[in-house]
Amino acid sequence: MAEEVILLDFWPSPFGMRARIALREKGVDFDLREEDLLGNKSPLLLETNPVHEKIPVLIHKGKAVCESLVIVQYIDETWGHECPLLPSDPYERSRARFWADYVDKIFPVGRAAWLSTGETQEAAKEEYIQGFKTLEGELGDKAYFGGERFGYVDVSLIPLYNSFYALEKLANCSVAEECPKLVQWAERCMQRESVAKSLPDPHKVYDFLLVLKKKLQPQ
Amino acid sequence: MAEEVILLDFWPSPFGMRARIALREKGVDFDLREEDLLGNKSPLLLETNPVHEKIPVLIHKGKAVCESLVIVQYIDETWGHECPLLPSDPYERSRARFWADYVDKIFPVGRAAWLSTGETQEAAKEEYIQGFKTLEGELGDKAYFGGERFGYVDVSLIPLYNSFYALEKLANCSVAEECPKLVQWAERCMQRESVAKSLPDPHKVYDFLLVLKKKLQPQ
Repeated sequence: MAEEVILLDFWPSPFGMRARIALREKGVDFDLREEDLLGNKSPLLLETNPVHEKIPVLIHKGKAVCESLVIVQYIDETWGHECPLLPSDPYERSRARFWADYVDKIFPVGRAAWLSTGETQEAAKEEYIQGFKTLEGELGDKAYFGGERFGYVDVSLIPLYNSFYALEKLANCSVAEECPKLVQWAERCMQRESVAKSLPDPHKVYDFLLVLKKKLQPQ
Repeated sequence: MAEEVILLDFWPSPFGMRARIALREKGVDFDLREEDLLGNKSPLLLETNPVHEKIPVLIHKGKAVCESLVIVQYIDETWGHECPLLPSDPYERSRARFWADYVDKIFPVGRAAWLSTGETQEAAKEEYIQGFKTLEGELGDKAYFGGERFGYVDVSLIPLYNSFYALEKLANCSVAEECPKLVQWAERCMQRESVAKSLPDPHKVYDFLLVLKKKLQPQ
């Protein structure tokens, strides 16, 4: 009980996906508890993340860790030191943190790309694709962002790939067409069990975002 | 030369202040190079931070580290392991990271509080003060956010205290009045040489923000 690992999650959340992937990379058994974010948040969520009231929340030994990148770093520092997600060299670590933060900076642009309309939407689409081109430039000819090993930046970014299909359908925004090398990287990531098991069916994500869009933009 | 530490900085930047404080906490000699952000950015800045073109940039052994919290963690991992800024326990580290990220989340709210007008400004002022009340709640009766030792969250937050005076003059927003315990904490931090030496005169910051406001809100 004391060693129990609980993840408060919501299946279409890219932030939740990060925590799921990191736990599975480390081979940690966890109790995934699905939150109903569109309806009622559980008392446990409100109690463990009173500041933001958002998933994911990782509860380990009764203590809560919040914010997806903080959770991934916690997982990396707590389990499976033989398969680290962050490199050991301080400079390489700083680069990994920089690019994971960059992913967090472009995430709201992607949201604007499918939620907004008109000129705002066009500008967001362009900025989002530009962001992925920058990421593709950083990836270069490496297998993963950190080199030969799947790591922190890969965990941070791969959940966004999951919504490429929805973005194309909802906003006619094809990141995949513009960034072929990044698609190859994503397909490489998808071959990992930790990733394949943690990312939902893109068609289901599209269906969900379509409902969410209608909810957020009532006629 | 190879060991040379350069900080590309801009004196009123709270993000630059974080890097300055961390370097001084660790007793690292560095070459502070002031950038002219309102005029021309130096070729070195554009070369070392091509993604964001922003200060601070820390250049160590010819390699550039960008983004203030990434820089502070790099400094912590590279120098002065006998006086760490982040705790060694993974859970305590996750809490420090959570609260430093929280500071980054409220920073743009403070900016909106002195840059906007009318209802938007009132809402931003209220949200900003609420953010500091949340931080004051986390501080509780501790000397510093991490307990007895000055650390990562303190480094992240104290630069914002530096603009309290400007915020009061520019937006009639008195965080100090609402958060007396946080002011005591700030005064405690200001007694450290690393902090006192890294924070500019609040009157000068006010003068600077007044000019910046006129520039950003032309009549």
